[in-house]
Amino acid sequence: MSSTEGKPIECLAAVAYEANKPLVIEKITVEPPKTHEIRVKILDSALCHTDAYTLSGADPEGLFPCILGHEASGEVESVGPEVTDFTPGDHVILLYTAECGECSFCKSPDTNLCVAVRSTQGKGVMPDGTVRFKNSKGEPIHHFMGCSSFSEYTVVADVSAVKIDKSFATDKAALLGCGVTTGYGAALKTANVKEGSSVAIFGAGAVGLAVAQGAKARNASKIIMIDTNPNKKTWATDFGATDFVNPLTDLKKDETIVSKLCSMSPDGYGIDYTFDCTGNVQVMSDALMASRRGTGVSVIIGVAKSGEVASIRPFFLVTGRTWKGTAYGGIKGRSEMNQLIQDHKDGKLKLSEFITHRRKFSEINEAFHDLHQGDCLRTTFSF
Amino acid sequence: MSSTEGKPIECLAAVAYEANKPLVIEKITVEPPKTHEIRVKILDSALCHTDAYTLSGADPEGLFPCILGHEASGEVESVGPEVTDFTPGDHVILLYTAECGECSFCKSPDTNLCVAVRSTQGKGVMPDGTVRFKNSKGEPIHHFMGCSSFSEYTVVADVSAVKIDKSFATDKAALLGCGVTTGYGAALKTANVKEGSSVAIFGAGAVGLAVAQGAKARNASKIIMIDTNPNKKTWATDFGATDFVNPLTDLKKDETIVSKLCSMSPDGYGIDYTFDCTGNVQVMSDALMASRRGTGVSVIIGVAKSGEVASIRPFFLVTGRTWKGTAYGGIKGRSEMNQLIQDHKDGKLKLSEFITHRRKFSEINEAFHDLHQGDCLRTTFSF
Ligand SMILES: NC(=O)c1ccc[n+]([C@@H]2O[C@H](COP(=O)([O-])OP(=O)(O)OC[C@H]3O[C@@H](n4cnc5c(N)ncnc54)[C@H](O)[C@@H]3O)[C@@H](O)[C@H]2O)c1
Ligand SMILES: NC(=O)c1ccc[n+]([C@@H]2O[C@H](COP(=O)([O-])OP(=O)(O)OC[C@H]3O[C@@H](n4cnc5c(N)ncnc54)[C@H](O)[C@@H]3O)[C@@H](O)[C@H]2O)c1
Ligand SMILES: [Zn+2]
Ligand SMILES: [Zn+2]
Ligand SMILES: [Zn+2]
Ligand SMILES: [Zn+2]
Repeated sequence: MSSTEGKPIECLAAVAYEANKPLVIEKITVEPPKTHEIRVKILDSALCHTDAYTLSGADPEGLFPCILGHEASGEVESVGPEVTDFTPGDHVILLYTAECGECSFCKSPDTNLCVAVRSTQGKGVMPDGTVRFKNSKGEPIHHFMGCSSFSEYTVVADVSAVKIDKSFATDKAALLGCGVTTGYGAALKTANVKEGSSVAIFGAGAVGLAVAQGAKARNASKIIMIDTNPNKKTWATDFGATDFVNPLTDLKKDETIVSKLCSMSPDGYGIDYTFDCTGNVQVMSDALMASRRGTGVSVIIGVAKSGEVASIRPFFLVTGRTWKGTAYGGIKGRSEMNQLIQDHKDGKLKLSEFITHRRKFSEINEAFHDLHQGDCLRTTFSF
Repeated sequence: MSSTEGKPIECLAAVAYEANKPLVIEKITVEPPKTHEIRVKILDSALCHTDAYTLSGADPEGLFPCILGHEASGEVESVGPEVTDFTPGDHVILLYTAECGECSFCKSPDTNLCVAVRSTQGKGVMPDGTVRFKNSKGEPIHHFMGCSSFSEYTVVADVSAVKIDKSFATDKAALLGCGVTTGYGAALKTANVKEGSSVAIFGAGAVGLAVAQGAKARNASKIIMIDTNPNKKTWATDFGATDFVNPLTDLKKDETIVSKLCSMSPDGYGIDYTFDCTGNVQVMSDALMASRRGTGVSVIIGVAKSGEVASIRPFFLVTGRTWKGTAYGGIKGRSEMNQLIQDHKDGKLKLSEFITHRRKFSEINEAFHDLHQGDCLRTTFSF
């Protein structure tokens, strides 16, 4: 039994008080976990675009004040009543996509979109409707995506964490909490890329590069990475791309990115699997149009700006293309995470290579700046 | 050997000389079939929206003069060199979606979009680049969709017809040439409707009612038909719908067709399979939005007006819905037609019930009028 069990913990957290303002690093109080909850000491956390999106105020569902962060690993400090899967000291990855194992979505082999904690998570509260965080003035602070990892301690639902082996490096583990798993899963589960096929990936960020890793793990014969940033070419190659196209400089007169990609496909009819990892709605349409007539599958991973729509001439669907999307790569976080860790150990899935920046937690506001520099895949913080 | 073999045939055809003008019924000459072609005496033909669409001038790829018609059965009059699958006297259904069995599309189990005659078919000519029709002035007349069934005789590629049993009624057979096969196949192949699932179908024309038949054949537990024409309710029920919704009259205040359909789904999360059989792009988006979070599949069957786009907030795809389309229901016309005929014999697929109007060939222009009256599923002509 830890000395803190059952008691509130005082610790440092980065609180987002207002949209578009720097996070405030300050002492907060983290209440003990309630029924089916666990309190976790964060060991490593990375910064993802969704954190920046919410902080920017562009997310219409963003709630302030809150503690952001959702790509993280940690150690269980204590567990609430009725928690059976965790004991203090366990290492975990936090899951913004929970897995209860019992709802109709968890029971379906075709989706990972568990609804166990969905509605309260969206409201920034724990399943009982209350929060576990307050600041020194006693004001309540919202949870974020069921995780809130920009804090030395957090409380999450027991369905929102997966136990991992203690021997596994916790900085690598943190990455599996969002972007890398999303991209890798999108290739393996959502698209189910087949051996020998052609793949085109728009956007060589952490997500797109993880898609490339998934396509490579499936022995795709052609993996084309498309990015408007020429510096991404080396990364693309390192992560498995066989080709790189910069739509700003590599298109001939009268060529579009769609016609270019079709011309690069083995028989000219288009690419077997295409992925949007940019969040740009025009890219989403292009990705669908570049996918193969008859059998092509295009997967939207990027998150579009609020209110934006993706448009397509129905002809492209009527002639046999399939448009899908993915959340967290279709990966069921609790039952399938160990397979991803195994894939990493087997050399199929890079992890450390995604960490381009390491910072102290006190530099978290600088990390939001890193995100937009074009030379950053992921910034991680050790606590 | 028939007395006409190897010679031009003079016969009646309905020629479309100009967009938006009545067809002209007149004597034409039909040349003998060339290599890998067959000449067919049309026995029954139905009128489909695509014929009307092209005649209206709205189809930017429409070519005049041409002989329309693509939903038809006939008897092989003679065969050209190298034809091995047909002999004179065989009964056939014409196929606007050919099946050569040899192209990469035919070899894929996942698509029926054969490319063997695709490019010439789109140009209104036979595979050798020439036409088999001329009028009494000797002017060439284009082929249409590789079929041109509004003529007593036509010539088609051998990959554009399937042999059927002579005991099978040729008026029923004609219907299998387009709309009915499209809807039934969309349910069975494109969506692959599962037993016990929920289905929503927008548009209770021949196509939508055939989807209902497919959903019923798969023992879907809920089949909701949506149509703005209240007279379609009886038909919907007769063809297998368990529910009927008229969006113009059946929605409460603050209800949309999307929220209404979700509320009708067993657990409120949306409908397992939805189908657009209207061609209206707003309906296409609604159908996708009404499909189930996590696993829903929405299939576009309707043909949109030229230049129109369907739009969607990417969120609906990212949260696990799949958007597809279908051409000819995904049915491979030569290898899978006999299964449909068997399904009809087994009582799973109605056919005669789709024939609401029967006309003489000489009344073909009136049939275009029937199409827009709301009480017509299909008008057929016997020759
Ligand atoms: N669906 C999910 O579950 C999920 C999970 C995590 C992240 N995401 C989303 O995935 C997207 C990618 O995340 P990331 O961390 O890799 O982002 P990132 O910003 O690091 O990478 C995006 C890349 O796209 C490139 N790009 C931008 N516009 C482009 C264009 N028009 N054409 C080609 N390339 C273009 C950029 O140069 C950049 O390299 C984001 O929208 C993020 O919000 C979704
Ligand atoms: N993809 C293919 O291979 C293929 C093949 C054949 C036909 N089609 C297309 O399928 C569509 C349906 O063909 P059909 O012969 O059944 O047509 P139809 O006109 O007989 O039936 C369409 C039905 O939709 C209803 N409708 C129209 N607008 C509506 C709305 N907003 N909401 C609800 N209902 C609405 C009409 O009242 C009508 O009952 C057409 O667009 C046709 O071109 C596609
Ligand atoms: Zn994320
Ligand atoms: Zn669940
Ligand atoms: Zn048709
Ligand atoms: Zn073929």
